[in-house]
Amino acid sequence: METPTNQLDSAIRTQRTEAIAGTITPEMRRVAEREGLTPELVRDEVGRGRLVIPANVVHLGQTLDPMGIGTVATVKVNANIGSSPGVSDVPGEVHKLRTSEQYGADTVMDLSTGRDIDETRLAIITAATVPIGTVPIYQAINRAPSIDELTIEHLLTEIEHQAQQGVDYMTIHAGIRLEHLPLCQHRVTGIVSRGGGILARWMVANRAENPLYTHFDEVCEILARYDVTISLGDSLRPGCLADASDEAQFAELRTLGELTLRAWEHGVQVMVEGPGHVPMNQIEDNVRKQQEWCHEAPFYTLGPLVIDISPGYDHISSAIGAAMIGWHGASMLCYVTPKEHLGLPTAEDVKQGLMAYKIAAHAADVARERPGARDRDDALSKARFDFDWNRQFELSLDPETARSYHDETLDHDYYKSAEFCTMCGPKWCPMHNFRNIDWEEVSLVVKEVDAAAR
Amino acid sequence: METPTNQLDSAIRTQRTEAIAGTITPEMRRVAEREGLTPELVRDEVGRGRLVIPANVVHLGQTLDPMGIGTVATVKVNANIGSSPGVSDVPGEVHKLRTSEQYGADTVMDLSTGRDIDETRLAIITAATVPIGTVPIYQAINRAPSIDELTIEHLLTEIEHQAQQGVDYMTIHAGIRLEHLPLCQHRVTGIVSRGGGILARWMVANRAENPLYTHFDEVCEILARYDVTISLGDSLRPGCLADASDEAQFAELRTLGELTLRAWEHGVQVMVEGPGHVPMNQIEDNVRKQQEWCHEAPFYTLGPLVIDISPGYDHISSAIGAAMIGWHGASMLCYVTPKEHLGLPTAEDVKQGLMAYKIAAHAADVARERPGARDRDDALSKARFDFDWNRQFELSLDPETARSYHDETLDHDYYKSAEFCTMCGPKWCPMHNFRNIDWEEVSLVVKEVDAAAR
Repeated sequence: METPTNQLDSAIRTQRTEAIAGTITPEMRRVAEREGLTPELVRDEVGRGRLVIPANVVHLGQTLDPMGIGTVATVKVNANIGSSPGVSDVPGEVHKLRTSEQYGADTVMDLSTGRDIDETRLAIITAATVPIGTVPIYQAINRAPSIDELTIEHLLTEIEHQAQQGVDYMTIHAGIRLEHLPLCQHRVTGIVSRGGGILARWMVANRAENPLYTHFDEVCEILARYDVTISLGDSLRPGCLADASDEAQFAELRTLGELTLRAWEHGVQVMVEGPGHVPMNQIEDNVRKQQEWCHEAPFYTLGPLVIDISPGYDHISSAIGAAMIGWHGASMLCYVTPKEHLGLPTAEDVKQGLMAYKIAAHAADVARERPGARDRDDALSKARFDFDWNRQFELSLDPETARSYHDETLDHDYYKSAEFCTMCGPKWCPMHNFRNIDWEEVSLVVKEVDAAAR
Repeated sequence: METPTNQLDSAIRTQRTEAIAGTITPEMRRVAEREGLTPELVRDEVGRGRLVIPANVVHLGQTLDPMGIGTVATVKVNANIGSSPGVSDVPGEVHKLRTSEQYGADTVMDLSTGRDIDETRLAIITAATVPIGTVPIYQAINRAPSIDELTIEHLLTEIEHQAQQGVDYMTIHAGIRLEHLPLCQHRVTGIVSRGGGILARWMVANRAENPLYTHFDEVCEILARYDVTISLGDSLRPGCLADASDEAQFAELRTLGELTLRAWEHGVQVMVEGPGHVPMNQIEDNVRKQQEWCHEAPFYTLGPLVIDISPGYDHISSAIGAAMIGWHGASMLCYVTPKEHLGLPTAEDVKQGLMAYKIAAHAADVARERPGARDRDDALSKARFDFDWNRQFELSLDPETARSYHDETLDHDYYKSAEFCTMCGPKWCPMHNFRNIDWEEVSLVVKEVDAAAR
């Protein structure tokens, strides 16, 4: 293992180092095209660290279509897939990837912890046009005889292995430190991050600081060689409302800010992960702190859920928090499915989670008043007013479902241009009535009644 | 028909007149009990007009369990049910009422426009423990040869008829005035309120002002006799993002403020209806204006949807707006089902709409930091951390769904106390790992490592 160094190897070329050198890469050009931005702005934002383009050089040479994550870009949605020890199946996970891409996931994380992790990951990367993220510690512990015997060598070897496979971004839980643990003692749900839980246990058993923190420079050196974007994991994110915005969460966030600067020195692109469970009235403050403490590195949040009592519907309670946090400045929203807290999601759960998050991300773009963000809404509303049902379905986030709901009661082709639906029936549709208004007549009547009233 | 008068008949006794007279009614006492407030506060808020108790004296003598709507109370949820000309069925609508009550609707509106309107309404009122609302103009037009030939007598007769049947609150579209119509000419979706659409058409055809506006005092006199709460309809609510917060919407809102004061003079309790479709960044301002212009009368909103492109999922996009508007001060949220804009909801759609809105209303209560609002969340989170799955299901908004999702992969009784689920599997659960932490040991390790570092 090499000695850690802050000296940037001149052979390192990442989107970040290229941007700082003033170069516009083909990937920046593609992101500019997809976002409707100038290539120069994309380059500047990447250089400034406010925009990341997760594009491992290996995956880039294969199937990846580059995309960008940052406040200057539209809000993105990540779908988590992956097996767990109870439920594992390579073709099933590839099917979830396809479902994710079909319903608009911008990135996909493979969080497999089941059998055949390596095979699953390769199958997913090979099939994916979107960036693929992972959490290397999940497989690194398989290299050790036990969690307590995990070493930094196991971790670095696994990180390099996955970088070679083409993983575009990796969650690295380097921010949880020994000194943070006592802050969690009286939490209602303790630690709810899998990686964070492993490291907490390791630190106590080994009477030592988090190895990903102490060897952070070595981690960054590997990531820089493949241009793997680091996603700084929030091991201490709140797992319930009671633990939101507590000392533990914010102590780790400050450390993530420190690590952001260190990763940047290595030329590594950085995202920062965020909560979790946060009541609505604390969401804006959570973004403000992250942006300030982490130097405006893109914020990548899990929801947040705004209540705890909605198992089975957590895609909805978290979409509320996700929409708000996206509006206030988060750049990517990690979806939550209806199975959250209950079990591993199926392909149908993946779809439901994605639909809720496409809504949240779009609502955030609309609320941020991004140029053109409302165009599709306006076009759909115009089609709605024109009773052009087919166009209305086409412009919907999920045309198939919109069409099938409509057709449940009115399935004949005639009704695709009918000036009503079964919600109001033919006589009652207000838009139908409104379309027949004679505006010259209205103007005359208003004047007439106004004159009579004088 | 009597001459309109602003002189309050001394025989009129409504919750409002009683409160102003200093009396605490049994209904106020019941509301105080349900909300955990003092009866005196409930009385004062009712007298001030900030809280309404929709309780028609007829329904009160039957099955009604009184409830309150206002900023001092928890945020409420209304479910719309009712037949339409295409889809009509009395037992089906009573089934939707039962579904609504089962999943926590605080009030139910019967918006039937199909056959057997009268029979449907009576069946619903007779079965309901929650207040029932209606929109009398929907049936009033059946009394006229055509919409254009509708008279104020038809309207007043229908209002009185429904008051006698026991309807607890009625949407009256008295705020749409002739002078507002030209403001709608360039809207993308024009008028999307059924009652508003009828009145707009009527005003132009009859070259006259809205009869519900010109005869508003007579309307109030009838409502006061039965203590029917008036819900001032927002005929000009925006039907899409493009029309949100426009001149038409706000001109009507100012009129609703004027009508609030006039209804109060008659001893009538008042709610004010609101949008509709509003981007997130305009929601707080919408509430602020309503509270200021309508003298803090309870705001009762339909969503709002925060995007237009989610047909089939509008319960989700509107739950985002509903949660936010409830947080900022709306008192009741009218649900939206997955069938919105597409067709008449089924009982399953009613359930899905209600679950989304129970989430929104609860999220608003939590964000407002109402005393005790988070107790159930904290209890569920504690049960989650304790791996007490049965308790976790019991505390869920929909225990049956939560349980069935969990049991899809782990259905044996053994798993009801297992320290994992299939999301992470047995080895990976961070909460399981966290529970085994020895805090004395943590404290020792932190000191030891800290000392070594010096």
